[in-house]
Amino acid sequence: MSTRPPGSGYSRRKQLPDLPPLSVEGRTERTREALAARGADALVVTDLTNIGWCTGFTGSAGALVITTDTSVLVTDSRYRDQAPAQLDGAGSQAQVRIDSATFDAVAGCLGGAAEVALEADRIVWADQRRLAEALDATLISATGLIAGLRSVKDEAELVRMETAADIVDAALRGCQDRFVPGVSERELARMLEDQMRAAGADGPAYDTIVASGPNAALPHARAGSRRFVEGDLVVVDAGAVVDRYRSDMTRTFVVGRPDDQTAEIHDIVTRAQAQGVAAVRPGIEAQEIDRVCRDLIAEAGYGDAFVHGTGHGVGLDIHELPAVRRGNTAILSPGQVITVEPGIYLSGFGGVRVEDMVVVTPSGCRSLTKYPKESVCQ
Amino acid sequence: MSTRPPGSGYSRRKQLPDLPPLSVEGRTERTREALAARGADALVVTDLTNIGWCTGFTGSAGALVITTDTSVLVTDSRYRDQAPAQLDGAGSQAQVRIDSATFDAVAGCLGGAAEVALEADRIVWADQRRLAEALDATLISATGLIAGLRSVKDEAELVRMETAADIVDAALRGCQDRFVPGVSERELARMLEDQMRAAGADGPAYDTIVASGPNAALPHARAGSRRFVEGDLVVVDAGAVVDRYRSDMTRTFVVGRPDDQTAEIHDIVTRAQAQGVAAVRPGIEAQEIDRVCRDLIAEAGYGDAFVHGTGHGVGLDIHELPAVRRGNTAILSPGQVITVEPGIYLSGFGGVRVEDMVVVTPSGCRSLTKYPKESVCQ
Repeated sequence: MSTRPPGSGYSRRKQLPDLPPLSVEGRTERTREALAARGADALVVTDLTNIGWCTGFTGSAGALVITTDTSVLVTDSRYRDQAPAQLDGAGSQAQVRIDSATFDAVAGCLGGAAEVALEADRIVWADQRRLAEALDATLISATGLIAGLRSVKDEAELVRMETAADIVDAALRGCQDRFVPGVSERELARMLEDQMRAAGADGPAYDTIVASGPNAALPHARAGSRRFVEGDLVVVDAGAVVDRYRSDMTRTFVVGRPDDQTAEIHDIVTRAQAQGVAAVRPGIEAQEIDRVCRDLIAEAGYGDAFVHGTGHGVGLDIHELPAVRRGNTAILSPGQVITVEPGIYLSGFGGVRVEDMVVVTPSGCRSLTKYPKESVCQ
Repeated sequence: MSTRPPGSGYSRRKQLPDLPPLSVEGRTERTREALAARGADALVVTDLTNIGWCTGFTGSAGALVITTDTSVLVTDSRYRDQAPAQLDGAGSQAQVRIDSATFDAVAGCLGGAAEVALEADRIVWADQRRLAEALDATLISATGLIAGLRSVKDEAELVRMETAADIVDAALRGCQDRFVPGVSERELARMLEDQMRAAGADGPAYDTIVASGPNAALPHARAGSRRFVEGDLVVVDAGAVVDRYRSDMTRTFVVGRPDDQTAEIHDIVTRAQAQGVAAVRPGIEAQEIDRVCRDLIAEAGYGDAFVHGTGHGVGLDIHELPAVRRGNTAILSPGQVITVEPGIYLSGFGGVRVEDMVVVTPSGCRSLTKYPKESVCQ
């Protein structure tokens, strides 16, 4: 009848300091305001992450019906006990209705609403068709309604995201002497992920990318069996999850001494990234950050080699609003968390990407990623 | 310039034996046959897992257009190098088209097809609306078309799933002396996941469930801070990922000696599960497995406490076709992999679930889960 924690692997795990409690208070009201602005009198939320953000529910099935004066979570009997407990704990006022015939139950919760909004970018076509049959109402496409609200983080959310970012910074520091010939991409990725968990993360926020040599020319390479050789560029793109909130960062290391082109593209990307971060402030369009980074890289002669957008929002999902790319005229607001991650990718040669996750503040922004950029390419 | 593997945490990791290569050969042809049976002359595949199953592509964005004589993967410039390499490696004949205006590019690949099927249960309503605008064709809802083909696994897929199942069996054996008072749910879950990774898994197939005492009454509880106490039922639901393929199993343990009701419900569920597995064979309806389990539990007086379906297909996703539940008249075929996982859940008291993952064989089925059931409740 021992009470010793099991196994040495476990006992090395760090316990995170207490995180401030998450509360969903006010979120349903803000959702109603956004809904009214779109001319609908009810919303059926089908995205589980959005349902969780509104109510605190973390189950794997359900729909949330928000009308002008009610809020009802429909879920099935597996969540008979869990759903009321979670809603209560998160400060949600939503009622719980246990019913496995979800869409018929949704119809019964709408109270005669005539213009019912659906999250068109979250509900699959088949479900939209089923709802169209079950409801006696006009369905309105409401893209990005809750996603827009979710993009602005409160303090309790930011603490989780900064804790996740700190954990990745520390994991990378713990691995910084491993950018030497013979270490494989997968070994480094696993070491990073092990260190994240040991530091208290729930896990990686996505499959950690370690892309070396020619693989670094693939922006979304996975960590494979390739072993580092002298002169390699190594792109490390890593994030952690803390209490469902994610972080995201990238650094590009050099194995040994960089040749001239390696040093050149590392310098260009680092400068572009710094200028992009310096441009982040409330009131400007998201695409402006992209333009700043892209212009610098294009002027340096590598415009065609920057093959993706500059960044994206982060939070409960690894990719959220706002997209930081050409064409997105959405205005940045305090509390939004975005990545700034320009890159240069040269087929067959390699690539460089540098990424920080930053929070928009009233006067500019603050980086949640603190890992240095200069030391990685001497 | 050391070439020593980094860190002791890493060096304990086991290398898996070589897995037979995955090949996508023949899958596009089978998709075309299924498509013709539904009266469509083209299919736009938007689900990334389905695209990967058809072509070998593992990127995070793209659409696959299959017509009667062409197959084109549309993706963006991030995958300029990766997409052709992956398709070639998997034996796919699909062409790659790099274009960030995905839906316009899809329209350009359809070659005048008039009846274009979409995966209605995989494409969001907003994308269906965009495609409806971009295409001069009738859109047909084709639910479960590729999912149906995917449900039948080939040998290379089965090897990965059985390897994943073996890893979880071994991890659970490594933890079987930890069902003692004082160990917490989260500690046990982390120990299990650490052992899976140490045994060569890419990671857990889903958040490992360890639900003890009253938490065991929640079919989808997560592992929390609760510590085991004498007499607890502890439901452990765990799976691993090996090269993108998943496993799924559940055992319910007792801390110390079971009381009468604990022993009774454990016995009922174990017998129901064994009868369910014994019923699995080609040619019967999926719902028949559910009926067998449900009848036994109902006859024992616990019908209302079996609050979910009996099982589901497993593969690249943790929940795939076929659903093993009432109302699903789909006929089982050799090569399909399903779970059989009845349970009894008593609010405030606890619960029992027992689950094996089995593959349908020409004459019956073979369990990929081998962990014993008898030893867990003496």
